Amino acid sequence: MKTDINAYITENQNRFFEELFSLIRIPSVSAHSHRQTEIHQCAQRWKELLLEAGVDEVNIFPTDGNPIVFATKVTDPALPTIMVYGHYDVMPAEPLELWKSSPFEPEIRDGKIFARGADDDKGQSFMHAKAFEYLVKTNQLKYNVKFLLEGEEEIGSENLEKFCSENAEMLSCNTILVSDTSMLSAETPSITTGLRGLAYWQIEVTSASRDLHSGIFGGAVANPIMELTKILAQLTNSEGKITIPNFYDDVEEVSDYERELIAQIPFDEEDYKKKLSIKNVSGEKGYSTIERTGIRPALDVCGIWGGYTDEGTKTVLPSKAFAKLSARLVPHQQYEKIAELVTKHIKQIASENVEVKVDFLHGSQSYVCPIDSPEYRAAEAAYTKIFGIKPLPVRRGGSIGVIPVFEKVLKVKPLLMGFGLESDAIHSPNENFPIDLFFKGIRTITEFYLQIQSDKKS
Amino acid sequence: MKTDINAYITENQNRFFEELFSLIRIPSVSAHSHRQTEIHQCAQRWKELLLEAGVDEVNIFPTDGNPIVFATKVTDPALPTIMVYGHYDVMPAEPLELWKSSPFEPEIRDGKIFARGADDDKGQSFMHAKAFEYLVKTNQLKYNVKFLLEGEEEIGSENLEKFCSENAEMLSCNTILVSDTSMLSAETPSITTGLRGLAYWQIEVTSASRDLHSGIFGGAVANPIMELTKILAQLTNSEGKITIPNFYDDVEEVSDYERELIAQIPFDEEDYKKKLSIKNVSGEKGYSTIERTGIRPALDVCGIWGGYTDEGTKTVLPSKAFAKLSARLVPHQQYEKIAELVTKHIKQIASENVEVKVDFLHGSQSYVCPIDSPEYRAAEAAYTKIFGIKPLPVRRGGSIGVIPVFEKVLKVKPLLMGFGLESDAIHSPNENFPIDLFFKGIRTITEFYLQIQSDKKS
Repeated sequence: MKTDINAYITENQNRFFEELFSLIRIPSVSAHSHRQTEIHQCAQRWKELLLEAGVDEVNIFPTDGNPIVFATKVTDPALPTIMVYGHYDVMPAEPLELWKSSPFEPEIRDGKIFARGADDDKGQSFMHAKAFEYLVKTNQLKYNVKFLLEGEEEIGSENLEKFCSENAEMLSCNTILVSDTSMLSAETPSITTGLRGLAYWQIEVTSASRDLHSGIFGGAVANPIMELTKILAQLTNSEGKITIPNFYDDVEEVSDYERELIAQIPFDEEDYKKKLSIKNVSGEKGYSTIERTGIRPALDVCGIWGGYTDEGTKTVLPSKAFAKLSARLVPHQQYEKIAELVTKHIKQIASENVEVKVDFLHGSQSYVCPIDSPEYRAAEAAYTKIFGIKPLPVRRGGSIGVIPVFEKVLKVKPLLMGFGLESDAIHSPNENFPIDLFFKGIRTITEFYLQIQSDKKS
Repeated sequence: MKTDINAYITENQNRFFEELFSLIRIPSVSAHSHRQTEIHQCAQRWKELLLEAGVDEVNIFPTDGNPIVFATKVTDPALPTIMVYGHYDVMPAEPLELWKSSPFEPEIRDGKIFARGADDDKGQSFMHAKAFEYLVKTNQLKYNVKFLLEGEEEIGSENLEKFCSENAEMLSCNTILVSDTSMLSAETPSITTGLRGLAYWQIEVTSASRDLHSGIFGGAVANPIMELTKILAQLTNSEGKITIPNFYDDVEEVSDYERELIAQIPFDEEDYKKKLSIKNVSGEKGYSTIERTGIRPALDVCGIWGGYTDEGTKTVLPSKAFAKLSARLVPHQQYEKIAELVTKHIKQIASENVEVKVDFLHGSQSYVCPIDSPEYRAAEAAYTKIFGIKPLPVRRGGSIGVIPVFEKVLKVKPLLMGFGLESDAIHSPNENFPIDLFFKGIRTITEFYLQIQSDKKS
């Protein structure tokens, strides 16, 4: 009798953890330029793990940025091909003092793996390697498989589009699988069918050429922090609308029917508020929380700094103030156009008494996935079998820069089979991934292969 | 023939530098709680230097905060007493990367001493010790002298008022001398006759209980940085007025005659702009730059921070945002009342979607000194003799918390014999003090003693 996936997981779970932890222990933080060694170490570790899982060949391709790991398993050249996409880079772990255990030393507590990357995306992408390993080792794989793992997802995947264009033949495939999203809840599985785009700027406001004594100069020299707050405060209004001219011009107007479907997605506002410890939900007037994060654009200041930020009371009129600003975009909004609009508007509303520099740091387009494709149906069947309930199609607020790139360059619409939860705290201190979902993810991915393989045969 | 002060300085200048440098090398940063050892070392070093300079007795008094150094020299109990006030604590040196030489290793370049505290206030208060030493060593001292050096001036002198009240008898004096202010320029000496008061707050805005992914939550959860910018942006208007209700209620209305005198103070706006590398002066409509920093209150954000402030593009919706806010106050504005007004107003205008905490960190009253007292006239004569030009009485924008306390508790109006320059960059990187002014300061202080001693005799 063939070992079934449950038995295989049970037999091998300690090894699975050790392999995943070996990836997590490498702090492959792409936003920090001093982590280049770790970036390369992590790519190398993926290479070893993929070879052990059963691929024929793995290459690490240099790019102008971080290297790309690419692996192939040819079962039969006549068979169709699945390509798995994931990323081995992680977000910075700061603020470190808020972590209960070290971010790069995974710890299992309360049935969860706690570590930076436990979910996003080391944990999620590793499930694909293990589902693949099971299918190979038990001779059930009836597809060709490719793995593409990049190291710049968290900083905008800037070199992946070029890599895809230059290697379109090598990357050609019929289906792209990505696990880098979350579900509505552990009990309400969902498949992400839409992603918001992203535009990200850094703003620098300069007044005098050096920090000044606020007593001697205060009242006569422009304060760059105050000028920055005046700029930022003007970008949204009391109704939660973004006030930048033409910002909403290309926003997809979602039909009433679709909005009705969205209204059916289970959502407990009290529970949402409680989990986040917020007093109220807030945002654009006329839209629900799910709409605000799924079908509407949003503007956020991700960081701000300037002047004296240490203990005590230094009386200084600072020279400079900075902010990091991001916009989440929806279908039809092109980030290049938005980048220009926002930059121009900020310069226009800035005081003449200060220098204002706006740097566009990166952007990605939004994405929508059809729900009537054979791939979506196979995924739906796989989730239904493993979770015991049909997954809901949901448009989510996050951005995965490369998804629209695959669509554009490889002409394949990726399928977003995510297994994360909102409570996984990705990008935050104490990121975690429930072991139950780690195992269910491996089983669902395995089931997806079995489903789609039987589709192709029938 | 008696050694004159010029010869005395020339003979002893290397020792003067070494003694001053021994104070500067101790990083007595009062805002940093981990500098307690250095605070105590610096007080101890002052004790040694004052004994060497010729005082009879020095005691270091503990307080609830940093210790107070108090020294006495009794020439004749029947004579009047001068008390010198200074502070041995310094501002933090951050941002360290902007210093050309190490802030706590003094370096002489281009005729200036570069170091944190070179001017404020180690350099300036040390001149008093050396003028006193000269008078003692050459038997010319005809006054009793007291030295009071505190270690909390840069954090609001919180324990000095209590110390003064409890030791009013010990501190009793006829004249208080303070060198902790600046002159209009090296060529236009001036005596500070007014100081602004200060009120200082820290604001903390909290949204969710943890940092969130800006893609998943952006648009539906209040952004604490944006809410903070909306608060701060509202506190001043486009005419440079502070918009907090009742803020101006008690502001002294300076007479037209006084404003005419102020208009006569030499001021080169182009040069001012050039020195600060600013595009324009700015501030309250209807007032000149000198008025804006001398007779009008001002509001400044001294620091702001929140979210991701490192390299790159972390997409985060932060949990918290912070700002340090200060107000400079003018005569008749009571900081206690302003503290309350501002705190109340900020809470009132804050969004209901976030928690806003406002902590009042410290305050000091404003001060005005008469220009017809014997002390002022003696100082005026001393400056005139050493600088070759009569000093102008000027109201300045800075705050020295203890000055109004002396007036209130000891019933003596301190005389502010400052020798700093705006270009000394106090509270900023590359703080410095010109050697020429260091020597002229010692000579002017010496001359002040000789003038006031001859006044008393006549």
